[in-house]
Amino acid sequence: MVRIGIYGATGYTGFELIKLLLRHPQAEIVFATARSAAGQRLSDVFPTTIDLPLVGADQADLSAVDLIFTCLPHGAPELITIAEAALAAGKRVIDFSDTFRILDADVYTRWRGKPHPAPELLSAAVYGLPELHRTAVRSARLVANTGCYPLTVILPLHPLMKAGLLADRTVIADSKSGVSGAGRSLALKTHFGEAHENFSAYNIGRSHRHIAEMEQETGARIIFSPHLLPVFRGILSTLYVNLKPGIKVDEVRAAYDIFAAEPFVKLLPPGKLPELCHVVNTNQLLIGLQAVDEAEGRYILVACEDNLIKGASGQAVQNMNVMFALEETLGLI
Amino acid sequence: MVRIGIYGATGYTGFELIKLLLRHPQAEIVFATARSAAGQRLSDVFPTTIDLPLVGADQADLSAVDLIFTCLPHGAPELITIAEAALAAGKRVIDFSDTFRILDADVYTRWRGKPHPAPELLSAAVYGLPELHRTAVRSARLVANTGCYPLTVILPLHPLMKAGLLADRTVIADSKSGVSGAGRSLALKTHFGEAHENFSAYNIGRSHRHIAEMEQETGARIIFSPHLLPVFRGILSTLYVNLKPGIKVDEVRAAYDIFAAEPFVKLLPPGKLPELCHVVNTNQLLIGLQAVDEAEGRYILVACEDNLIKGASGQAVQNMNVMFALEETLGLI
Amino acid sequence: MVRIGIYGATGYTGFELIKLLLRHPQAEIVFATARSAAGQRLSDVFPTTIDLPLVGADQADLSAVDLIFTCLPHGAPELITIAEAALAAGKRVIDFSDTFRILDADVYTRWRGKPHPAPELLSAAVYGLPELHRTAVRSARLVANTGCYPLTVILPLHPLMKAGLLADRTVIADSKSGVSGAGRSLALKTHFGEAHENFSAYNIGRSHRHIAEMEQETGARIIFSPHLLPVFRGILSTLYVNLKPGIKVDEVRAAYDIFAAEPFVKLLPPGKLPELCHVVNTNQLLIGLQAVDEAEGRYILVACEDNLIKGASGQAVQNMNVMFALEETLGLI
Amino acid sequence: MVRIGIYGATGYTGFELIKLLLRHPQAEIVFATARSAAGQRLSDVFPTTIDLPLVGADQADLSAVDLIFTCLPHGAPELITIAEAALAAGKRVIDFSDTFRILDADVYTRWRGKPHPAPELLSAAVYGLPELHRTAVRSARLVANTGCYPLTVILPLHPLMKAGLLADRTVIADSKSGVSGAGRSLALKTHFGEAHENFSAYNIGRSHRHIAEMEQETGARIIFSPHLLPVFRGILSTLYVNLKPGIKVDEVRAAYDIFAAEPFVKLLPPGKLPELCHVVNTNQLLIGLQAVDEAEGRYILVACEDNLIKGASGQAVQNMNVMFALEETLGLI
Repeated sequence: MVRIGIYGATGYTGFELIKLLLRHPQAEIVFATARSAAGQRLSDVFPTTIDLPLVGADQADLSAVDLIFTCLPHGAPELITIAEAALAAGKRVIDFSDTFRILDADVYTRWRGKPHPAPELLSAAVYGLPELHRTAVRSARLVANTGCYPLTVILPLHPLMKAGLLADRTVIADSKSGVSGAGRSLALKTHFGEAHENFSAYNIGRSHRHIAEMEQETGARIIFSPHLLPVFRGILSTLYVNLKPGIKVDEVRAAYDIFAAEPFVKLLPPGKLPELCHVVNTNQLLIGLQAVDEAEGRYILVACEDNLIKGASGQAVQNMNVMFALEETLGLI
Repeated sequence: MVRIGIYGATGYTGFELIKLLLRHPQAEIVFATARSAAGQRLSDVFPTTIDLPLVGADQADLSAVDLIFTCLPHGAPELITIAEAALAAGKRVIDFSDTFRILDADVYTRWRGKPHPAPELLSAAVYGLPELHRTAVRSARLVANTGCYPLTVILPLHPLMKAGLLADRTVIADSKSGVSGAGRSLALKTHFGEAHENFSAYNIGRSHRHIAEMEQETGARIIFSPHLLPVFRGILSTLYVNLKPGIKVDEVRAAYDIFAAEPFVKLLPPGKLPELCHVVNTNQLLIGLQAVDEAEGRYILVACEDNLIKGASGQAVQNMNVMFALEETLGLI
Repeated sequence: MVRIGIYGATGYTGFELIKLLLRHPQAEIVFATARSAAGQRLSDVFPTTIDLPLVGADQADLSAVDLIFTCLPHGAPELITIAEAALAAGKRVIDFSDTFRILDADVYTRWRGKPHPAPELLSAAVYGLPELHRTAVRSARLVANTGCYPLTVILPLHPLMKAGLLADRTVIADSKSGVSGAGRSLALKTHFGEAHENFSAYNIGRSHRHIAEMEQETGARIIFSPHLLPVFRGILSTLYVNLKPGIKVDEVRAAYDIFAAEPFVKLLPPGKLPELCHVVNTNQLLIGLQAVDEAEGRYILVACEDNLIKGASGQAVQNMNVMFALEETLGLI
Repeated sequence: MVRIGIYGATGYTGFELIKLLLRHPQAEIVFATARSAAGQRLSDVFPTTIDLPLVGADQADLSAVDLIFTCLPHGAPELITIAEAALAAGKRVIDFSDTFRILDADVYTRWRGKPHPAPELLSAAVYGLPELHRTAVRSARLVANTGCYPLTVILPLHPLMKAGLLADRTVIADSKSGVSGAGRSLALKTHFGEAHENFSAYNIGRSHRHIAEMEQETGARIIFSPHLLPVFRGILSTLYVNLKPGIKVDEVRAAYDIFAAEPFVKLLPPGKLPELCHVVNTNQLLIGLQAVDEAEGRYILVACEDNLIKGASGQAVQNMNVMFALEETLGLI
């Protein structure tokens, strides 16, 4: 059994993580922290779950766990303190924020406009994407769990980069995300009356900070247009790529054979495109490929996932399984 | 032309009111106030509307208007100050809050648990429901615009009370409202992730303060169960009444003839029930009547309206039309 | 391992059943039938599930299974044929339709206006509600899986009936259901443009055929108002009951202790009401109790469930677990 | 007064048209046809509208009208017959289908894979987009009302083409449409359970037939990815264009000055992007412009409209106003 502590249990990703771990046969939740709900039980907040006590972060007993999941705000001082303490105590850490995803502190500074809050921890960090970095994840002490948007760009592009098929490094990613991606903190943009029956683009072009990890992991240059969908869960990204002219679509499809043994990534058959409803409540990432013009090398990729599972908490459990030498699909099917 | 000032223009009812007034051939908006958006133009907040400047309440020129609409929080000190100043200056007031709806200050105190903030204004107040109080509204200086839920209870019950058909004073009102009824202020309950795809009951039984005005206007005793629907607009109420045993359904239907000349209230033909989609974006209140058991006198009524229009801003324009001797339907069809 | 055949795998309840059985450690799906999709694989229809071949009903090999689930239209000739063949072959049957729920053929005829299509099978049938009929379900050959609406009325009323607390046999059930309850067959009422952002009542009073099983199981007389909610999953019912005057709310709450050991039914603590979001994707039925007037004995109950799980496929798996002497919660938590 | 006949009054665009015409001070609806609802009144179908009788197409009296609107399926034999009869009788026609939008019959054949059903009518047809063809619309006998998707591509690109700013003729249009675009006919794709909480791409690349009119009106080559949004109304298109390198964003913005006098097209200020909620229930098309890389000439445009109004029925009323020398905004603000 992996003994687990969770920091930040009452946000959307924290609660999703708990639901997954309760079904996991090798996981034992030892403690869970919350800020405003500390002192209550999880079942007080959400009556169909377990009677887990929610404690303040300062009451969590690090010595009783093997692994902690940190579902805390990006770069928060509390997060740095907790991660340092856990690593110092020989515990392993899976962090949900994007604090440790950009492995080069200078790149972090360039995108954030301020220095990294804990550059000394970056050397311990591994980008938590088993499909690309399984070996490194296995022995990692600090895993930076992947971002929700980036996964829908990185995984579809990876085989094309690997096979050297891209003619133009610049890729357009038109992405659409459910509202849960913005978290449980109140904001006018995610007020029901503003998000419901609405649809909007935001931070389009080269401004969204998730571009940094997309580029780190693909080597491509990404023009990224996020949009807010009036659904709770799910991300669908439509990618426009320019491949070397004249390549046949079958050859392009063959590049995706490197995912053949992956349990959670799948290229759909010719003529089929993935939809949000296919992936919601699963740990799957589906990819569809459509040739627009073989002669010119123009292709469209459509990728989708559940942002709270494959894009966050499911991915975290998958990383845990790899780190603790468990069956990688355990608790995820 | 009626010269108009609006206090609280950027909430859901204030903005809906502005959209209605812009179509109204006899209305001229002279000023509109906002709190956080003061200094901007309305088109900065919402680009398809007009370039109306939004001012602070202290910059509004009362002398330039005939009528003010106050879309401010219930019982707010600012509201009392503004209403007093306007009435003192000989202006007429239509207030959207429930501050002046309960005409008996003692009843107000009993439901609110605290004294009325301006009992001296109550004598000037008229409950702003033209279908019941048209004559009083015509000459009123201070109109207390009806509450959104109450209208769906008062109008269906009124003919039954008037005709003396009710055998049991106690009526069950099971009501379901869209989220806009809770306003534009941020709250976890109206956060997209909590309200979307959810449905819940709240304040059921005898606790919701809107019961006071339902009872004032009907003489019935109301057991009231409000529910929160995952839509933006609309209220549908299902009412369970016990009429005198043995009355034929046709006789019950005949009681609704008192609405025959009303442009905005309609009893549907036998076998038809109203749906939210029928009334959204209209100033109509529709009623359906279903006999459960004529011998026992058991009947069900279904009533629905757009809570932002007939339940708030459309009703306010209807009141204005009555007050200024305009065609009652002007700007509302 | 229980070897299972599923008739009607591509409707909403059939597909939900398959998803549950795939997680169930003691279930093996041997065959699944479909009408228009016969010849395809389940993963052709829905890419994140398994490669199960879909066969025509005539190609299903009854001899290879222990149990069949029939997810077919109410009273369909095909259903009767299949049920008869399975029972004759010594197989056990869990039927999702309401064909076998009314155990008295005369009552069936009265509600349906036509004779029962297979009265000779009724003697083998058990109403599939373990919380009330666990012993009978255990040995039943033909289990009539409960209806979705009825469960939200029967379970909250059962303790009150059992404890003799009801003063008035007549109970008002104001129920609201997600659209999946109407199935996957096309109809204008469930067309996106008609159901989305809409809310409506239908078949109110004494006309909905589900009243028959509510009354059979409770002994109460039910006035039933179903409504269509613009969500996919979930039912919430608000029940108005008249108990014997003067009973204290604590005594009423105590009646629910008979559910104390039930894993899937729960009375919430005082002051708490269940919401759809609590039960969606679970096999739980939650109940909230609110006293309106202890002296008069007026109470409101709010109950909710996921209509596709506790109201259909989860309930079916629970019945299967009971019938095959498995842990009752297996595959359901 | 313009005397009007409507063919196909009970679909989504026909009904929206009627609602607009009822507010129009110079329009008189003389007849409205329906297929299955013929014999009923419009208020039987939708109780808050007028008591307009719905007749069969063969009962419509063409001699009593000046103008007909045809809201019938693309290329239907019935549509051709009606259009021919109306034109022969000297009446004017505004057609909602895409039958007469492609003015070159050969291009029609290439995109449709079959010959045009009435090539002899094409010489009378004008593409019904006042912003580009106001003079031609004024005197047109047959107006082909614009398609819903195309408008969100044509209007944002028009100033760039006109000013000669495009460096690359190929433009990517990633479009997202509400479900009403698929009409009121039943289909699994628009069944509530399939479209709700879902999001999907379809016909991506070079296959959607609306590309033909986009290219006719812009001269660009369009890579078009339509997606289905889980909302009823609205289209938002995100366009990726390559302009001549080194042009300053202010110069690009200046190209949109040609819309300065247009009442229904608006470029938002720098830093602002349009959202569906801004345009729903209006006849406005809003455009946002974002420079990605001035040096490279990479820009993103975001355009949105209400597909049932500016994208269909509002546009038709605007065309009517132009054809009959009325104020162009009449009935549309």
